[in-house]
Amino acid sequence: MNVRSIEWVDDTATLRLLDQKRLPESIEYVDLSGHLEIAEAIRDMTVRGAPAIGVAAAFGMVAAVALSDANDMTRMQQSMDAADAILRAARPTAVNLFWALDRMQRVAGEIETLTELLPALMAEARSIEAEDIEVNHAISAHAMALVPDKATFFHHCNTGSLATVDRGTALGIIQTAHERGKTVMAYLDETRPRLQGAKLSAFELNSYGIPHAVVVDGASAHIMRTQDVDLCVVGCDRVAANGDTANKIGTYNLALAAKDNDVPFYVAAPSSTIDLSTPSGDDIEIETRAENEITMIADVSITPAGSPAFNPAFDITPARLVTAIITEFGIAYPPFETSLATLLSGKDTAA
Amino acid sequence: MNVRSIEWVDDTATLRLLDQKRLPESIEYVDLSGHLEIAEAIRDMTVRGAPAIGVAAAFGMVAAVALSDANDMTRMQQSMDAADAILRAARPTAVNLFWALDRMQRVAGEIETLTELLPALMAEARSIEAEDIEVNHAISAHAMALVPDKATFFHHCNTGSLATVDRGTALGIIQTAHERGKTVMAYLDETRPRLQGAKLSAFELNSYGIPHAVVVDGASAHIMRTQDVDLCVVGCDRVAANGDTANKIGTYNLALAAKDNDVPFYVAAPSSTIDLSTPSGDDIEIETRAENEITMIADVSITPAGSPAFNPAFDITPARLVTAIITEFGIAYPPFETSLATLLSGKDTAA
Repeated sequence: MNVRSIEWVDDTATLRLLDQKRLPESIEYVDLSGHLEIAEAIRDMTVRGAPAIGVAAAFGMVAAVALSDANDMTRMQQSMDAADAILRAARPTAVNLFWALDRMQRVAGEIETLTELLPALMAEARSIEAEDIEVNHAISAHAMALVPDKATFFHHCNTGSLATVDRGTALGIIQTAHERGKTVMAYLDETRPRLQGAKLSAFELNSYGIPHAVVVDGASAHIMRTQDVDLCVVGCDRVAANGDTANKIGTYNLALAAKDNDVPFYVAAPSSTIDLSTPSGDDIEIETRAENEITMIADVSITPAGSPAFNPAFDITPARLVTAIITEFGIAYPPFETSLATLLSGKDTAA
Repeated sequence: MNVRSIEWVDDTATLRLLDQKRLPESIEYVDLSGHLEIAEAIRDMTVRGAPAIGVAAAFGMVAAVALSDANDMTRMQQSMDAADAILRAARPTAVNLFWALDRMQRVAGEIETLTELLPALMAEARSIEAEDIEVNHAISAHAMALVPDKATFFHHCNTGSLATVDRGTALGIIQTAHERGKTVMAYLDETRPRLQGAKLSAFELNSYGIPHAVVVDGASAHIMRTQDVDLCVVGCDRVAANGDTANKIGTYNLALAAKDNDVPFYVAAPSSTIDLSTPSGDDIEIETRAENEITMIADVSITPAGSPAFNPAFDITPARLVTAIITEFGIAYPPFETSLATLLSGKDTAA
């Protein structure tokens, strides 16, 4: 089975999301109407994963226009700008959010009449959605050159179909290797605080029949020292021009574990997550989320009353710890300052 | 307040343990009768922490002799050997368990009559208990030379009064620095899977009024990169002759985070945890515990049915990542092959 995390429903002009907060206990969908509900779903992580967030935001703009009562282009642009600001503020770290909204604004800027606007925005959102699937398949295809026939992976967070429209980025590589007949096993960082590895990636690999084991985030170095691990694959929320990679908290620790044990560390990065306008990781804002993501598990408090928690949601993995960055255009190797720019200028170094 | 984790109750010939599985929700004690109950409490982590486990095992031998119906020394030695084997098998990684039982056997070997045996064993167990407190105070005192007046610590697992008889090892250093007027703050790894940092260390620092923040285990490298962290302090379950350190899973990852950010990494090690007969970390058996320590939190399953987990309870931090090892005899610096042997031969290099 494949799960569909995000889908626009034309009849009702709503965005249907698989409620990832309810997985793996139950598979439930929510139908969201209007950009405010969609922004809230991004903020509260009903939808998550940088690529999926980008698609949700694009349909958020569609929803904003569909429901707006503006009756001329000037007022409609004001409605769109207001929706854009709200959607853009929902989460600060993933660049796909901004990238998708920029695409929607660019399309709107080329439209002159109200009647043309909604169909044009809908077409652009559908393109972003369709491209995500294509991009992910291209990333997986390029990655196969890096995956041995018998491959033990280490993976962080969730980067599968649930984090994208379909196929996924890093988890898509694992799935593709399995489908192509490689002998695959994956260690999954449970990924505290929100346990996307234990809940979502395990759910996906379980569904696909791929052997895996959930491990605590602190175990990665020990497991790489004592078990045969061939490669780490992770996703990303933003890659800076120098290759510094913002991803779910714990990624930097995993990269250190890999480096210390000579395990290659690969970042699966749709070009939409690569931000050449951000020089380095120091320029990426890191979202700090609520303390109770750490202090409460399954509605039970694990810490004593009065003990604070500190909850940065992402970290920056320095480029020096990254073996290669896998994009839909091919594989970038260090020095990333030049290889990423070359790839994004349209040249495919892997072809 | 200080909490007392372990206490022998003469009147009832029972070992009273603070039930650490119930903290921080409730403070409850269990009274254990006989070595089988004590071995089970070690196995199920009602008592935990290498020094506390050693003391519990010593009283386990007292309890075995007190309840034995052997009526001559030969049969009593058989009873003791049987109890010794059961206690020794309760947990494989912490060397204090073996060290304490060795001490008890040595005392028993010097006794010739049944009437002398129980008092002699009781005296030895009381000595192990009293020495633990002295040793911990000595470790903290030596460590003060390494702690700046304004000190932000990073700490893993629980190594405080709850893991020892009193004062603790690594957490004792934090407490002592606070008591001596240093300005102290501590980041506490929550320490999955059993959350001893979030539950026990936070409980202790909260009780002592020491500022702290609970963080997920994956956040350490990011926090050291972005916040001022002065030093890491951790305890240990066994230190090999070359300085390789077995400690709670996640310690190796924390040491890598420290190394990459030039933060000193200190191991607080009572000499009872230093095992010169173990050449290196490769010779230390690592306990694998039940999968449900990972897959269940607060009686709720976090993983999908059918997803396995892999749960090594300890890891080995290579000596090359350890800045110094703090013992009751002073501070050992690399190369540990010589410095540890020198310290344990009774010389105090820090005096």
